[in-house]
Amino acid sequence: MNKKKRKISVIAGGAGFIGINLINELNKLGNQIIILDNFSLGSKNNLDNFLESSDYALYEIDISKSSDVKSFFDECIKNYGKIDEIWHLAANSDIPAGIENPDIDHVNTFLTTYRLLRESSKYDIETFNFASSSAVYGDWGDKSLSEKLGPLKPISNYGAMKLASEAQISASAENSFKKVNIFRFPNVVGAPATHGVIFDFINKIKSDNPNLEVLGNGKQKKSYLHVSELISAMIHVSESDYRNSKVEIINIGCSDRGITVEEIAKIVKEITHSQKQIVFERTDRGWMGDVPRFSYDISYLHSFGWKSSISSREAILLAAKEINLQLNKRSNL
Amino acid sequence: MNKKKRKISVIAGGAGFIGINLINELNKLGNQIIILDNFSLGSKNNLDNFLESSDYALYEIDISKSSDVKSFFDECIKNYGKIDEIWHLAANSDIPAGIENPDIDHVNTFLTTYRLLRESSKYDIETFNFASSSAVYGDWGDKSLSEKLGPLKPISNYGAMKLASEAQISASAENSFKKVNIFRFPNVVGAPATHGVIFDFINKIKSDNPNLEVLGNGKQKKSYLHVSELISAMIHVSESDYRNSKVEIINIGCSDRGITVEEIAKIVKEITHSQKQIVFERTDRGWMGDVPRFSYDISYLHSFGWKSSISSREAILLAAKEINLQLNKRSNL
Repeated sequence: MNKKKRKISVIAGGAGFIGINLINELNKLGNQIIILDNFSLGSKNNLDNFLESSDYALYEIDISKSSDVKSFFDECIKNYGKIDEIWHLAANSDIPAGIENPDIDHVNTFLTTYRLLRESSKYDIETFNFASSSAVYGDWGDKSLSEKLGPLKPISNYGAMKLASEAQISASAENSFKKVNIFRFPNVVGAPATHGVIFDFINKIKSDNPNLEVLGNGKQKKSYLHVSELISAMIHVSESDYRNSKVEIINIGCSDRGITVEEIAKIVKEITHSQKQIVFERTDRGWMGDVPRFSYDISYLHSFGWKSSISSREAILLAAKEINLQLNKRSNL
Repeated sequence: MNKKKRKISVIAGGAGFIGINLINELNKLGNQIIILDNFSLGSKNNLDNFLESSDYALYEIDISKSSDVKSFFDECIKNYGKIDEIWHLAANSDIPAGIENPDIDHVNTFLTTYRLLRESSKYDIETFNFASSSAVYGDWGDKSLSEKLGPLKPISNYGAMKLASEAQISASAENSFKKVNIFRFPNVVGAPATHGVIFDFINKIKSDNPNLEVLGNGKQKKSYLHVSELISAMIHVSESDYRNSKVEIINIGCSDRGITVEEIAKIVKEITHSQKQIVFERTDRGWMGDVPRFSYDISYLHSFGWKSSISSREAILLAAKEINLQLNKRSNL
């Protein structure tokens, strides 16, 4: 590949669960990979395989800090002459932690976005891709969530700061970038997991507790997407010439209405060959800021010519196998 | 009025254009008025009449500063024992300034909200009222703006930080307050004006320029509400027992599709008895972040039992007389 034409991709939060999956795919496309992470949630171990085999640059910086971001852009432009695209995945991913202390989401989920935009607007960068979330919608009960819904009333600080980020990105796009893609993520599953329902269940099965204790009554029903499909959808939209406006806001998800927490518990039990009894609580929410039902209207995504090829159930099954493997490896270390 | 039952009202940004009109009305209701302002945009002169004749407390603090807000709440609770309602009007009101420098809106429009919420959540406060804006919608062309529209793509940093504030208020309401009212303001006119189309035109007429130079082509058509009606609508909703959910997001506006900038220029010329010629630009936007068309769908507000009693044109006429008087007084000082 002609080095001069090589696309320069900056991935903020590149050492996280989604990040590591994304850089693998962008690397396959021949892009120059530049990873930003403060390793507060993302782990260097996640990157081991990738770093051994690939050409990359890694900046260990805190992008909520203005000075860190400033020096990064200066250096990056000096080294590579340009940046073609930014993938901003950096955020607090521990939603309950952000409910305990709003400053966590304010700094890690919103300020990271604000600082990146503030500095990147000084350079001629074509594409800004952002990892938003279904948490921006708040609780709409059984309603299938479309991008056209309003007004949005997020119920977690995480959701609030993702919506705040969307808003600032949209305003900044008036002066910057040629294409802006705001992807509203669904529940995403796969490896290397650091949190989430499957990860929790496997850890509980490995614990001394004789039961598998489920948060909530198990009836929470949500749709899930495998991380490989998420990455495929994002790259598809980002590379596509089809678009309706400079700033696109798009739900990414699969086509079904989802699977219950109880069914997930059963799948995890099966895969881990566990005999533990599944025990439920009485509440319809697993934790504060949780929503008991979640499914997306993804007709807008379909209009870009991308469709998921596996169901929520299949995604959970695949991810449970991968995470079980991941956690077994770790405990064998 | 029984002093013990007196409602304690905190008005953040109480010295601004909307604030001074609001505290006059809340004072008439017999509430204890507590004004917060840093006088960066609001002026102490605005408060002169009010302060001479009324019982009030005034805190000159910067509510974007955590320590200022913390000491205010401590002292306020010590003095009054409780706070019944917060009216958060503090924000950058100079939209073009915020487009030049995003930090202005980040600090004055968003951080003010964030700090107020962070501290007020520690106390048992019944009602939080917030001054949001039509700027959260972005540019929808000729479409009449309903709260149900989505996705929202603000085009100014001001609009972005108002939407960010809405989002954080919504999430904070999970743990705080009994009632939260997010009022999306339209273009509001009246005295004491500090900016806006009428204020600008009168100042231009008073200037040495032989022409009245209009920003944009004069075809921008927007609906306007007189400040007295805005206050009436907000107090109506805030005092009402009727509501559909804890967090209400409500457009406040009049019922018509508005009046053009050219018509406003003619009204101002008439009222000031000016002979200057009105001169237009070629662009359809007065300034970056401006929207050429604006009207609200206010059916949701109507469902609360409030309707405006004057048209956009009548509101402009009334405000032009008031602002002309205000500016003549000032130049006679």
